[in-house]
Amino acid sequence: MVVIMKPGTRKEDIDSLAKRFEEQGLQVGVTNGVGCTILGLVGDTISLDIDKISMEPHVERVMRVQEPYKKANRKFHPEDTIVRAGEAVIGGGNFSVIAGPCSVESEEQVVGIAEAVKASGAAMLRGGAFKPRTSPYSFQGMGTPGLDLLLEAKKATGLPIVSEIMAPRYVELFEEKVDVVQIGARNMQNFDLLKEVGRMSKPILLKRGLSNSYEEWIMSAEYIMSEGNENVILCERGIRTFETYTRNTLDLSAIPAVKKMSHLPIIVDPSHAAGMAWMVEPLAMAAIAAGADGLIIEVHNDPPRAKCDGQQSLTPAQFDILMRKMGVLVDLMGKKLIK
Amino acid sequence: MVVIMKPGTRKEDIDSLAKRFEEQGLQVGVTNGVGCTILGLVGDTISLDIDKISMEPHVERVMRVQEPYKKANRKFHPEDTIVRAGEAVIGGGNFSVIAGPCSVESEEQVVGIAEAVKASGAAMLRGGAFKPRTSPYSFQGMGTPGLDLLLEAKKATGLPIVSEIMAPRYVELFEEKVDVVQIGARNMQNFDLLKEVGRMSKPILLKRGLSNSYEEWIMSAEYIMSEGNENVILCERGIRTFETYTRNTLDLSAIPAVKKMSHLPIIVDPSHAAGMAWMVEPLAMAAIAAGADGLIIEVHNDPPRAKCDGQQSLTPAQFDILMRKMGVLVDLMGKKLIK
Amino acid sequence: MVVIMKPGTRKEDIDSLAKRFEEQGLQVGVTNGVGCTILGLVGDTISLDIDKISMEPHVERVMRVQEPYKKANRKFHPEDTIVRAGEAVIGGGNFSVIAGPCSVESEEQVVGIAEAVKASGAAMLRGGAFKPRTSPYSFQGMGTPGLDLLLEAKKATGLPIVSEIMAPRYVELFEEKVDVVQIGARNMQNFDLLKEVGRMSKPILLKRGLSNSYEEWIMSAEYIMSEGNENVILCERGIRTFETYTRNTLDLSAIPAVKKMSHLPIIVDPSHAAGMAWMVEPLAMAAIAAGADGLIIEVHNDPPRAKCDGQQSLTPAQFDILMRKMGVLVDLMGKKLIK
Amino acid sequence: MVVIMKPGTRKEDIDSLAKRFEEQGLQVGVTNGVGCTILGLVGDTISLDIDKISMEPHVERVMRVQEPYKKANRKFHPEDTIVRAGEAVIGGGNFSVIAGPCSVESEEQVVGIAEAVKASGAAMLRGGAFKPRTSPYSFQGMGTPGLDLLLEAKKATGLPIVSEIMAPRYVELFEEKVDVVQIGARNMQNFDLLKEVGRMSKPILLKRGLSNSYEEWIMSAEYIMSEGNENVILCERGIRTFETYTRNTLDLSAIPAVKKMSHLPIIVDPSHAAGMAWMVEPLAMAAIAAGADGLIIEVHNDPPRAKCDGQQSLTPAQFDILMRKMGVLVDLMGKKLIK
Repeated sequence: MVVIMKPGTRKEDIDSLAKRFEEQGLQVGVTNGVGCTILGLVGDTISLDIDKISMEPHVERVMRVQEPYKKANRKFHPEDTIVRAGEAVIGGGNFSVIAGPCSVESEEQVVGIAEAVKASGAAMLRGGAFKPRTSPYSFQGMGTPGLDLLLEAKKATGLPIVSEIMAPRYVELFEEKVDVVQIGARNMQNFDLLKEVGRMSKPILLKRGLSNSYEEWIMSAEYIMSEGNENVILCERGIRTFETYTRNTLDLSAIPAVKKMSHLPIIVDPSHAAGMAWMVEPLAMAAIAAGADGLIIEVHNDPPRAKCDGQQSLTPAQFDILMRKMGVLVDLMGKKLIK
Repeated sequence: MVVIMKPGTRKEDIDSLAKRFEEQGLQVGVTNGVGCTILGLVGDTISLDIDKISMEPHVERVMRVQEPYKKANRKFHPEDTIVRAGEAVIGGGNFSVIAGPCSVESEEQVVGIAEAVKASGAAMLRGGAFKPRTSPYSFQGMGTPGLDLLLEAKKATGLPIVSEIMAPRYVELFEEKVDVVQIGARNMQNFDLLKEVGRMSKPILLKRGLSNSYEEWIMSAEYIMSEGNENVILCERGIRTFETYTRNTLDLSAIPAVKKMSHLPIIVDPSHAAGMAWMVEPLAMAAIAAGADGLIIEVHNDPPRAKCDGQQSLTPAQFDILMRKMGVLVDLMGKKLIK
Repeated sequence: MVVIMKPGTRKEDIDSLAKRFEEQGLQVGVTNGVGCTILGLVGDTISLDIDKISMEPHVERVMRVQEPYKKANRKFHPEDTIVRAGEAVIGGGNFSVIAGPCSVESEEQVVGIAEAVKASGAAMLRGGAFKPRTSPYSFQGMGTPGLDLLLEAKKATGLPIVSEIMAPRYVELFEEKVDVVQIGARNMQNFDLLKEVGRMSKPILLKRGLSNSYEEWIMSAEYIMSEGNENVILCERGIRTFETYTRNTLDLSAIPAVKKMSHLPIIVDPSHAAGMAWMVEPLAMAAIAAGADGLIIEVHNDPPRAKCDGQQSLTPAQFDILMRKMGVLVDLMGKKLIK
Repeated sequence: MVVIMKPGTRKEDIDSLAKRFEEQGLQVGVTNGVGCTILGLVGDTISLDIDKISMEPHVERVMRVQEPYKKANRKFHPEDTIVRAGEAVIGGGNFSVIAGPCSVESEEQVVGIAEAVKASGAAMLRGGAFKPRTSPYSFQGMGTPGLDLLLEAKKATGLPIVSEIMAPRYVELFEEKVDVVQIGARNMQNFDLLKEVGRMSKPILLKRGLSNSYEEWIMSAEYIMSEGNENVILCERGIRTFETYTRNTLDLSAIPAVKKMSHLPIIVDPSHAAGMAWMVEPLAMAAIAAGADGLIIEVHNDPPRAKCDGQQSLTPAQFDILMRKMGVLVDLMGKKLIK
């Protein structure tokens, strides 16, 4: 951490502050110059409160040098984390595709889609039972019966299930019925929920918030991990920018950045990012080429009749063609496609 | 709602779609031209699902003409909503200032601040007992005992209490102990929580999310109102932009915009927006001049020792000076300052 | 400046780099710790190339501590700069309103508006002769004849003229005919143009770019000042964000921020920021309350017939009412309204 | 175009406006409903001024249905435009890599790099002679002598030259010495410059502005094309967002979007987007997989000694390895790599 002192601070005030840092076990170096003094702090600075130091009467500014996260930090855990759910494997060179409808609508629908995407090579089935919708007047999902239909689809195909949890009170239900628990973008900083899923035994799929930085995203993973659950998969799904042509702006730089910052696997959701089915293929291919560990793609048997997000869903036939193209590219990138 | 048909769509397909809209009770007008057909839909279009219509095989694009909100819409409720909590009144020409510490730390601290801000003219006391923090290693608030200390401060001063709720399980606790329930920016689209507080009897202070549009914000108010609780106060607290000098970018255009779109009162939080105490005064004054119905300002007896956000807190003495300046401006703007 | 060394860098490499900085006349302090070494550099670091230091083989990251601007920096020039054009004065407690049409259309139009806005208390006349338009098919302005019409209006009213320059080749023309030369938002980083107007004798009104930080904006002023022209007025006109309700998001935090960073005066353009006439009043009032030194407001005798931006123009009658309200607030803020 | 009338507008006012549109040769359809009337306009609406119609006394809002660009529009020109410069070909299935230093520094440097990148398979040489720098105190480029050194490199290698033009007065110089003329991101809406290069005989490489939408970007291409020069290459180079880890956020959705909107080729600049050499490879690969027609990559023989942007430059050896990986992927994507 670096502390810039206000111009004109007296030597005794600087020394006194430096001494307080040393008493906290830090190494402190002082650089004096005309009109500017800089303190360099080295040691375990993660627990220092940057806001509090900023408020010291003689301090002008504080800058962090070290990352504020530990458990998710690649520096302290150099090997890739590998997350498993049933036969599916994500991370450490393993590439899995999660596919399925935005929301569960009927047994016929979800079992049919599950069979189709499994035949095309998907490793997991996604499906929303509880849906976060901007409007209270939109379809809010089937709820618990939706999870049961997903279990029917799992029984029929063997595919592990990924579904979104929206509130702490559903933790037991999801622990029982779901294989991977998704935290949606709008809940990325719902800290109560993060702590709760941090005590679950199931892997967590943590979507990036619409306006959250890489560091905040990893800090949310750190919330989950600090409660004991270290099986976190990060998912880039587009951020909010000034561009309105696409629903959100997919930020593929997140892939190399997160891989440098953290050991956690990262997958990409091209369906929600673009919001348009015809953009899923180029964005999915780009994600693989950028080094993603997996993809989550919306597939619906009858997009025009979908209860939500039909506009961005592929048909099973389109998904099948895409899986073939993706398989070749995953192979070229030196990763193993898990089916 | 306006529906743009794909170029080359046959007349019978256009007519068939138009007929389906008419069967839903809408007026439909068709404009035909070379390479482009436009359907205009008029009537109760709030319940139409724009995504679904977009997926119709011959539809190129759909544009909404009418707002997707009813209960919060000024069109259907022209008079200002006035929200009351104890003696405090916000909206309809009444201006109230909410002041207090970021987080409750001790009885001495919170009672002392409460007495100071009341003496300066604040109408409500704010104080966080449950704190949303980016890092799991930061102070998370005192929890329930923090609410009890706020009650002590209320007993001593008579000031109604505003405090943030972070999860549905606290609804009963807040119903019992708190006068105005705050939903923080990070929970603006925590729809489960919105529904729960929509069933409370207390007014809700709904902060704007860091990257949420005015419309999404009002839709979140609509979630609360659609459950029965129509006492919602909107609070602009800065949005996330590329500028890093300030913590967030305070968007004061929100005030006239929201006043045109909705009848709900709107207040401003200059402390969190800027993140720097020295900016609170100019931004607070600007908010009043732009037409705000109130302000929420962080005040701490000893900012350098504050457990969070000290950097943006005013001392009671600074707050006292600011209140005098603000009082004159509130008066000039033709509003009544509630003390 | 602060230089963070890569973990594991050998002592001799650190010493060698430190020595090189010392040879450039800087004070260097070294903080050593487990896995992290920090160099603090103090002295004249403005001329150091941060990019080059970042590329040093053992350097992990470089952070700037001091501002990269000198002439525009309040630290080296504590008193407010006061800019004069004819009778108009901006800065140092003086408040001027610039008003007029988006584009000059005819003598009758521009003289009529000039007389009206002067009568209401404007101190300068704005009018575009060369117009930056997104589409090559939109009206591009009258060009030089437009400037001559502005001169007619100046003759009739005595109001100094503000008009936008779009290319270096017009410098002589503007030097001859215009009193304040405007650089538009889209040209804020047109560095060739900045250098050229830096050699003019007329004050420069420098609008903030749509996605430029305060620091970049001040650096563009520094370009002008470094060529000799120190009469620069900064103008906040809204930035581009995700919000689409307003044309741009007016960032009033720019006022206190710029006043702390620089001694240059700052005015606000509420007309272009919002893009809607009905929002001009609340935003203009807010700008005054936030501490602006002036305003630039679009006024058109017949907004529906304006050749551009009619949607955001006030009528002379609306402007007259606004001037009265603004006058009272300017007075309350302790500034002198120049008429 | 769709025109929404204000609630309560009388029938005769609606009819009168509709009649005026019909007199301009448009088809007009009127949809009447309770509290809302919609006019649909079909025909040649590109020349309609949306701002002016918005100002009509009874109009509430206007929405565009058709694109405001003609020459760049794929609807009117379905085949891909293919741009050639010497042996290099971009577009229509041809993929070219442009490589070279950020700025020209010496003959030895630029000829050496040119030989290296040609050997690795680059099709064109980039090099800046005139440099847009945020600070007036940074190296501003060698100017005309820099162009002459590029010509030496062209003589030695046969590679066509790409260099950035910063002002209209250099048009003749660039017409004589350069093969492809680059417009930088900061000049994307420097309309005077766009018009000037629109009269050149050389292809134009038009970088996307940091906060410009796809539509604005294509409108800037339309400026160039409307002056006669239809050889425009679009270049995505990252947009400005809230994320500060990368210099800008590379927006690869631009590739499929632009390909749908326009027939112009699109290339990607991963060096400037990320601002970090180690991110160039994953972003370059992602760009190819998303369908780009080429790449522009910074290569410097000695990055730590580069006069600008060394931090993002690859060494010739790194570039050579990258070219081999890219060649395989270009091939997989069914494009022809031009060498």
